[in-house]
Amino acid sequence: MNIVILAAGDFPTRPEPLCALRDADFVVCCDAACKSLLHTGFKIPDYMVVGDGDSLTATDKMLLGDKWVQVDEQDYNDLHKAMTWAISRFGIQDSTFTIIGATGHREDHTLGNISYLATFAEEYPGADIEMLTDYGRLVAMRGERRFASFPRQQVSVFPMAGGASVSSRGLQWPLDGLRLDRWWQATLNNVVADSFELRSDSWLIVFRTYDPKS
Amino acid sequence: MNIVILAAGDFPTRPEPLCALRDADFVVCCDAACKSLLHTGFKIPDYMVVGDGDSLTATDKMLLGDKWVQVDEQDYNDLHKAMTWAISRFGIQDSTFTIIGATGHREDHTLGNISYLATFAEEYPGADIEMLTDYGRLVAMRGERRFASFPRQQVSVFPMAGGASVSSRGLQWPLDGLRLDRWWQATLNNVVADSFELRSDSWLIVFRTYDPKS
Repeated sequence: MNIVILAAGDFPTRPEPLCALRDADFVVCCDAACKSLLHTGFKIPDYMVVGDGDSLTATDKMLLGDKWVQVDEQDYNDLHKAMTWAISRFGIQDSTFTIIGATGHREDHTLGNISYLATFAEEYPGADIEMLTDYGRLVAMRGERRFASFPRQQVSVFPMAGGASVSSRGLQWPLDGLRLDRWWQATLNNVVADSFELRSDSWLIVFRTYDPKS
Repeated sequence: MNIVILAAGDFPTRPEPLCALRDADFVVCCDAACKSLLHTGFKIPDYMVVGDGDSLTATDKMLLGDKWVQVDEQDYNDLHKAMTWAISRFGIQDSTFTIIGATGHREDHTLGNISYLATFAEEYPGADIEMLTDYGRLVAMRGERRFASFPRQQVSVFPMAGGASVSSRGLQWPLDGLRLDRWWQATLNNVVADSFELRSDSWLIVFRTYDPKS
């Protein structure tokens, strides 16, 4: 099952996130993100709307009927509520979870949503979870990971915690146990071949562009 | 002197960053950001373009003439080059440095640029440096700081390093030595009065909305 989680940031315009939406078997919308979806005319096989309901009217909720799941706790945001619901419904075996619409608008939402990738990866080990934006793809990783790639793909690596050390193979500017204290320190690298590898004992967020650097 | 640093992300549309640009005594443009500026018709008293020149043509540079400063090192990005130039030119006494256009487009540029706020604050202690986006204002802080505010202003606090602990006064959900390991953990707080205070021994990025939560 291809599960798409649609958050309430910028609705995507690039082919990659839009194709994920078109090919979804099921879409979980974060609260008012459902309005963007219903306005697009995308033919969605099935969907559910999950959130705290802050940005939906009573009429919205009535119209959604049994497509609406209200989760009132306030410790986590709607993206976390939606992912939790999606994983409890579909499990992580044979499912992929693609998050779209999670960036843009307020920068604090963008930062929060991106960092949830590391939280999801910790909470659901082995789950296939990726975020697609209009500019590239984001995943969380720890340990070793090999990424299929292409020459001049831009790669940026962000530490979730200060002092993370990271090593690489296949990048133009090799990371050799570089200790990351600032988010900008391992950004804007270039891939030199058809794959690259990263290694870190701490959680990292890895951003990769869709297009090679011109 | 009010110095504005214009980065090459989304050109601002909100009054707050646009007023900063209108009221600037001097604008430092990061590389190709100068094209956005020159197309706006804003009347700028004086400006300089600083960067590695990657996104400017030879003709661009020739037309800029002595308004163009090429900095070839690749350890830091164009925002860092521009800020370094601005501070060496104007000093931090009696100057304010307002960064605009630093978010939007690629998320890795957004994250990198935001995190430079902590680097600038470390490199230039006492400098008055703030980032204005279309959604709010961002500053880096460490130690104690009081912010003028208004009820229902949204405040999000991000740790630059894992394990940062943060305490607050004047927020709806008080932070009482909360240890921050994820960027989302201290987001989306509300101010309850006309000011609030934060305290941390680690570097934090503080985001505040322009508008109260509706």
